[in-house]
Amino acid sequence: MNEAIIILNGTVNHESPFYNDLRKRAGKGNVYVVCADGGALNAALIGVEPDAIIGDLDSLPKDLEEKYADRIIRDSDQNTTDCDKAIRHCINKNAERITIIGACGTRWDHFIAAAMLLKKYAQVKIKIVDEYNELFLAGKETELDFPVGSSVSLIPLGRVEGLKLEGFKYDVENGILEDASRGIHNEITESPAKITYSKGALLVNRILELS
Amino acid sequence: MNEAIIILNGTVNHESPFYNDLRKRAGKGNVYVVCADGGALNAALIGVEPDAIIGDLDSLPKDLEEKYADRIIRDSDQNTTDCDKAIRHCINKNAERITIIGACGTRWDHFIAAAMLLKKYAQVKIKIVDEYNELFLAGKETELDFPVGSSVSLIPLGRVEGLKLEGFKYDVENGILEDASRGIHNEITESPAKITYSKGALLVNRILELS
Repeated sequence: MNEAIIILNGTVNHESPFYNDLRKRAGKGNVYVVCADGGALNAALIGVEPDAIIGDLDSLPKDLEEKYADRIIRDSDQNTTDCDKAIRHCINKNAERITIIGACGTRWDHFIAAAMLLKKYAQVKIKIVDEYNELFLAGKETELDFPVGSSVSLIPLGRVEGLKLEGFKYDVENGILEDASRGIHNEITESPAKITYSKGALLVNRILELS
Repeated sequence: MNEAIIILNGTVNHESPFYNDLRKRAGKGNVYVVCADGGALNAALIGVEPDAIIGDLDSLPKDLEEKYADRIIRDSDQNTTDCDKAIRHCINKNAERITIIGACGTRWDHFIAAAMLLKKYAQVKIKIVDEYNELFLAGKETELDFPVGSSVSLIPLGRVEGLKLEGFKYDVENGILEDASRGIHNEITESPAKITYSKGALLVNRILELS
């Protein structure tokens, strides 16, 4: 499976051991690393070499622009975010699995838009992660092989119908989940847990460390 | 107009001068302050006295639980987040304008759910804020009296129809906004700018300081 990592411009606690594994995977050269614009700064902090830097370059430091001149893809399309451009670029490079870091920071609009891109690009397996969260779109039939006791939240983008949960502490009534508040903080009681639904788009947020 | 402030359990940079105004407003006693569970810790850091603390109390430090025993509303309903409970409580207290702080932090699920509550409680004017962002639901006819040059993002929750923008740098085509990526980073060119739409739910994220 072709794997890609997208590094965005949000806050990354690069000293966290969480990024060790990512650094190792990227370092082996079999994972394609794309930085969205100023995300290249996060890549430098983590110690990962980008294969491509994409965006309108309005937040890329000059020294990195010079250093990586051979792999910069300038794309000033105002109708898409740099994250969107990076995902499309990875799909064009045949990525089947994409991990996104640096999505959350001081720009809430960018974070919410990135979460919604999970629905727009449902054909690819995309995870947005940091050391506390793992956010992804549940397929219509999804198995979660997380350990028993794992905290997960189910976030409907709009109205989700025909929803059935197996191996969770809290079930839903009538298979409908429309209220994001209602799906927050569920718990895996049997692994693998199973999610099936017929209509809508359902995000899963796994909580990696309770804060 | 009855005003309330809800303080959540996310990350609050309490040393930022941004919270001076809020501290002053809350201190005058004509603003009702509700902490959602461990949000009471943020209130203490900012230096604001809560009028009520609501939630299942799983993240409220013991000393604050004792100090504020007379104003704690224990509500362990598993179908709603503490933020949801706090909003309903404020509405019951006749709040017409609510400011929410501490929404974003290490719990993405809570932040996304809070953003979606803006749609659930569209009957009240609610703003989620920090020193960089101001997030709210646009009414079907909304005037934004932000200064010319202000950065705003328009984030559709689902499909927004009949959308017309006046006083913005970038317009939309055919009055449809469905793709969150497309609405990010617009700019006010004439103040007040106007948003009208006929169908759906549209969030506005004003960027207070470009980072």
